[in-house]
Amino acid sequence: MAVITPNRRVRKTPFTPGVEAEGVKGYTVYNHMLLPTVFESVEADAAHLKKHVQVWDVSCERQVLIKGPDALRLMKMLSPRDMDKMQADQCYYVPIVDQNGGMLNDPVAIKLADDHYWLSVADGDLWQFALGIVLALGLDVEVSEPDVSPLAVQGPRADDLMARVFGDDVRDIKFFRYKRLPFEDTSFVIARSGWSKQGGFEIYVEGADYGMPLWDALFANGRDLNVRAGCPNGIERIESGLLSFGSDMRRENTPYECGLERFCNSPLDYIGKAALADQAENGPPRQIRPLTIEGEIGPCTESWPLMAEGRQVGQVASAAYSPEFEVNVAIGMVDRSHWAPDTRIELMTEHGMRWAVVQEKFWR
Amino acid sequence: MAVITPNRRVRKTPFTPGVEAEGVKGYTVYNHMLLPTVFESVEADAAHLKKHVQVWDVSCERQVLIKGPDALRLMKMLSPRDMDKMQADQCYYVPIVDQNGGMLNDPVAIKLADDHYWLSVADGDLWQFALGIVLALGLDVEVSEPDVSPLAVQGPRADDLMARVFGDDVRDIKFFRYKRLPFEDTSFVIARSGWSKQGGFEIYVEGADYGMPLWDALFANGRDLNVRAGCPNGIERIESGLLSFGSDMRRENTPYECGLERFCNSPLDYIGKAALADQAENGPPRQIRPLTIEGEIGPCTESWPLMAEGRQVGQVASAAYSPEFEVNVAIGMVDRSHWAPDTRIELMTEHGMRWAVVQEKFWR
Repeated sequence: MAVITPNRRVRKTPFTPGVEAEGVKGYTVYNHMLLPTVFESVEADAAHLKKHVQVWDVSCERQVLIKGPDALRLMKMLSPRDMDKMQADQCYYVPIVDQNGGMLNDPVAIKLADDHYWLSVADGDLWQFALGIVLALGLDVEVSEPDVSPLAVQGPRADDLMARVFGDDVRDIKFFRYKRLPFEDTSFVIARSGWSKQGGFEIYVEGADYGMPLWDALFANGRDLNVRAGCPNGIERIESGLLSFGSDMRRENTPYECGLERFCNSPLDYIGKAALADQAENGPPRQIRPLTIEGEIGPCTESWPLMAEGRQVGQVASAAYSPEFEVNVAIGMVDRSHWAPDTRIELMTEHGMRWAVVQEKFWR
Repeated sequence: MAVITPNRRVRKTPFTPGVEAEGVKGYTVYNHMLLPTVFESVEADAAHLKKHVQVWDVSCERQVLIKGPDALRLMKMLSPRDMDKMQADQCYYVPIVDQNGGMLNDPVAIKLADDHYWLSVADGDLWQFALGIVLALGLDVEVSEPDVSPLAVQGPRADDLMARVFGDDVRDIKFFRYKRLPFEDTSFVIARSGWSKQGGFEIYVEGADYGMPLWDALFANGRDLNVRAGCPNGIERIESGLLSFGSDMRRENTPYECGLERFCNSPLDYIGKAALADQAENGPPRQIRPLTIEGEIGPCTESWPLMAEGRQVGQVASAAYSPEFEVNVAIGMVDRSHWAPDTRIELMTEHGMRWAVVQEKFWR
């Protein structure tokens, strides 16, 4: 497998020295930044994540700053979700769509004040979309990428580790809520969130210089908790049904196809709403489904077509063997004609045809 | 060095099977797509490029389609360059800036018709900026990423190889002009352009299915020309003064700082023009400069500060040893106070301080 060639354009993060010292074995690039993909092995990393606690460099979850008198107006144009219901300490998962209802990104919005938001984005320069709107309409709002690098602490012992570094206040943070808690001479927004279902937090580290001191504090306090460096895990996130924008869904998909209809409740005429009216009424023609795959599979590095009677009825873009569930777990986008549970569909992999079976629900 | 983990989000290209068969050793990710960085070694690849002919998978130079009745209107909003002078078969290097004159991208615009352009973009989702403007203003123009994957043929024997596949018409294509020439049952836009100064072409391959047939045709016809797979070369491009957006220049830099003032001649009020008025009149406070670096240097994987009397006076983001010129060649952004030729400046690398010396001009 080819190595990755680093340069200034593919940015390192404030935590890269820690990641390298912990023996990272693979990277991907996400928002022009390095994102670790494996430390020991994807299987061993998953097993550890489910039992202990891991520290993840997810700096690549870049923030889009939306700040100024017109910030809420812009958010209401962008958001299919009703922004008036958002509380002051809340995080909102917000699928953002184009004029045709096609997904542009699926950020987590963090409300810092009525006129101040961060959008913690998936892979894609969503700030360019927001900036284009702002300049065209002459809105009074700043759009930029602030010096904020999220660090995730995930796993069943995350509360214990975080309490040692930030105090017991972290235990009271509710899911998708945040508190601002002190660290050294500063403070960080800390949310109960993260891209696993093992529980944990995301620390929005403002100021790159605080990166390694925080990393070191977490490791120093976590030795007896068996803390390790980790990263979004390719097995655990499929088991958990966590979708990867760019892989499982793209601009050609609507939020309804992605099973995100509960996040499309804005009463306002947001960008794309009219185009989504039919799917809101009648449901989408295809949708995300959990699948199992029979037999042996290789790594899923591009989309595998799902076929029925010589016709494509969907595709799988994420698949891995799950040691916990002893089956190949997968995420697919499946046509309505074949999305019912227990439907068996031919899956075309580069290693040959495999049978895929639609599941009732994800594994957790 | 860590390996790169492939997935559907980090897209393969129509030429990936060819690239892999030719033994690619390193990749970077550019516009959510794999871009090869080295085959034999960066030094050997450079030497071969200067003597023979190479085929480069630069599919990652994605196209932003700008098409419709308002296409020219949008182009005039985006372009600091006078679009009215652009000929029907012409390619235009166009720095695109934000409201502060900061570089958003430096694409090559290709005029397919008065109402139809491609922007062949550097790393960044510029289509999101264009789409935001289009939706906000209700312009009648389509913005999308078409199925176009550029393949570059570079090197002193490029004309000979291309003539064998496309006929002698390719020899008549002038620099930054294009012709549409037939291949099998289709035709491609072929421009005399490319990210080296060894001469050559870029073939805009419309339709992924034509990728490997074209790749194979070039290799079959080029055996006696010693054709090889190559890629943008980290040594040759520095010697040639070809700037990498994201490394040598970023949103914090203006086109004047990048030495691109000759591309800022639009008489219209394009986005950012007002902010650039002062630099248009008085010149920029810092600018791109070629530098040599004394002593041994390691790989430049992030920006190295240029220091004078304890104060930062610029940085270097691209540097490599040049076997041809027997010196370390580099590209820096240098403050006016220190940009005169022969100025010696302290350069802080992670391997220690090195002396950098400002050069009069790039090496070719």
